[in-house]
Amino acid sequence: MAVYTEVSDEDLNAFVAQYDLGAVVSCKGIAEGVENSNFLLVTDRGPYILTLYEKRTRREDLPFFLGLMEHLAAKGIACPLPVAGRDGQALRELCGRPAVIVTFLAGMWPRRILPQHCAQLGTALARLHLAVADFTMRRPNALSLGGWKELYGKCAARADEVAPGLRETLETELAALEAHWPAGLPSGVIHADLFPDNVFFRGEELSGLIDFYFACNDFLVYDVAICINAWCFEIDGSFNATKARLLLASYRKVRPLSRAELVSLPWLCRGSAVRFLLTRLYDWLNHPPGAFVRPKDPLEYLRKLRFHQTVRGLGDYFLDEDTPSPAGS
Amino acid sequence: MAVYTEVSDEDLNAFVAQYDLGAVVSCKGIAEGVENSNFLLVTDRGPYILTLYEKRTRREDLPFFLGLMEHLAAKGIACPLPVAGRDGQALRELCGRPAVIVTFLAGMWPRRILPQHCAQLGTALARLHLAVADFTMRRPNALSLGGWKELYGKCAARADEVAPGLRETLETELAALEAHWPAGLPSGVIHADLFPDNVFFRGEELSGLIDFYFACNDFLVYDVAICINAWCFEIDGSFNATKARLLLASYRKVRPLSRAELVSLPWLCRGSAVRFLLTRLYDWLNHPPGAFVRPKDPLEYLRKLRFHQTVRGLGDYFLDEDTPSPAGS
Repeated sequence: MAVYTEVSDEDLNAFVAQYDLGAVVSCKGIAEGVENSNFLLVTDRGPYILTLYEKRTRREDLPFFLGLMEHLAAKGIACPLPVAGRDGQALRELCGRPAVIVTFLAGMWPRRILPQHCAQLGTALARLHLAVADFTMRRPNALSLGGWKELYGKCAARADEVAPGLRETLETELAALEAHWPAGLPSGVIHADLFPDNVFFRGEELSGLIDFYFACNDFLVYDVAICINAWCFEIDGSFNATKARLLLASYRKVRPLSRAELVSLPWLCRGSAVRFLLTRLYDWLNHPPGAFVRPKDPLEYLRKLRFHQTVRGLGDYFLDEDTPSPAGS
Repeated sequence: MAVYTEVSDEDLNAFVAQYDLGAVVSCKGIAEGVENSNFLLVTDRGPYILTLYEKRTRREDLPFFLGLMEHLAAKGIACPLPVAGRDGQALRELCGRPAVIVTFLAGMWPRRILPQHCAQLGTALARLHLAVADFTMRRPNALSLGGWKELYGKCAARADEVAPGLRETLETELAALEAHWPAGLPSGVIHADLFPDNVFFRGEELSGLIDFYFACNDFLVYDVAICINAWCFEIDGSFNATKARLLLASYRKVRPLSRAELVSLPWLCRGSAVRFLLTRLYDWLNHPPGAFVRPKDPLEYLRKLRFHQTVRGLGDYFLDEDTPSPAGS
């Protein structure tokens, strides 16, 4: 939950007056999202989301993120669309921060993940990957192998405070990932953070994707690995093979996966686990006492990493219906 | 900012199905309010506020609060109106907590208080006090002298951690308040927590009052004293006599104040300062590390108390235009 910047009514009224949205009816900080300040803004024209970008979002990346949302919306992907002011600009400034108004997306993110959610997620993710094929802007993934090593360097000295042996686990795993990381897989723009709180459903139907502020260029199937970690483990740490099978099957119906992509999945899942383990570890070690945002548990991703380390082949996940998953629920 | 309870989409859909509100379109936790969990709930019928009452709000008080809002709304006071389900009941249960849906109130609370806000506040407060005259439910004020002494007892040993000498200041002040607290003033239901974040404006116009969860029976003019403390001091601690004059003058146009009420104001202001100083001190000393809610600064109210302690008579506030206020801005 996060509202970092307090916006005065006067500043807000002046800001909204730059748009064709009528007058402000209401504006309430939303207790969701951890990177930026988000407000549910109601004007005479209806509800919108107002986002103020805080320091973790780099200003120079914003044209990429906003351009991506415009591109996806134009391709029929349900996602927030940046609203342009009367001057044609969507990106402006409010309270000294870059700020944007985007369209309101109906739906709620699922608190309890059902298999059917994972099936719909797979379809939406594959459609996203097809839709970005002709998006021409690029943004390298700062949170791939090089970025992980940098984060590890910043956390190594204190990693064992969080779990005994974590430093050594990470060091060994980073070396293994470097040796086994795939090359030459189909690439494009990935969402890179498609956790359940970024996917909205209305009733049973997926109604949209939000929060494109980690989107970057990488292997498309790496996005699948991120979703497997984020959607297919139960709270008790067990791997739900049914959910993973549904996610994969529905993805492959829209965008077939090559043998090379499938074979890479275990290493991509390990890499994705390390990526979130490291960013959470960094936040855990560096979050100021009394901060609004409760840091997420890094050990959740250590447990996921350990699961993937036990995988001997694709059959251990879900691709062979006859092979039971070693930690399946 | 506060969302304490996470509501699953399944629980929410089942809850909303008990009303004639159509289906849930969206539900987002609001980063406002410190006592309860508040959500901006959008259904097919439009926006509503969903409140889950957390442990600081006593279940047995809820019929009083909800009855008061219904009474006020029926009298034309702009405030949230509890929405009844198909069974006629407004108060139900969600996630093991008492829960209610209330109507959505347009407007925003003023981040920067202008004199004109105080003028409108005075009018609205007086109208509120007239509107409750025939409200028959009662709720004693648990946060009056007896409650302050109890809170002091819980905080005394550690008060000096927050400000040297605070323990003695409080002990002396409580004795003085006990000796000088007025009796026999006109009484009724007061809001008792009408801070700026509980008063909405649309543009220049006051559009409604919210958060009646401290409402209780007490001297009506004590509500005025609470508002003077909450609205008429600047961030630097100075007393803004213009704002106080406007608040009082507009209040008196709607509900005249007797001489006895006016003369009591300095002691009521001291008492109100002590009330918020003590509750904030208690929260400061007892808030769990890492809690979502940043405790409010108790010393803001120590400074207000010190100002009121210097007042020699009504003229020091605002009632005599020729007497400059000792700390006026």
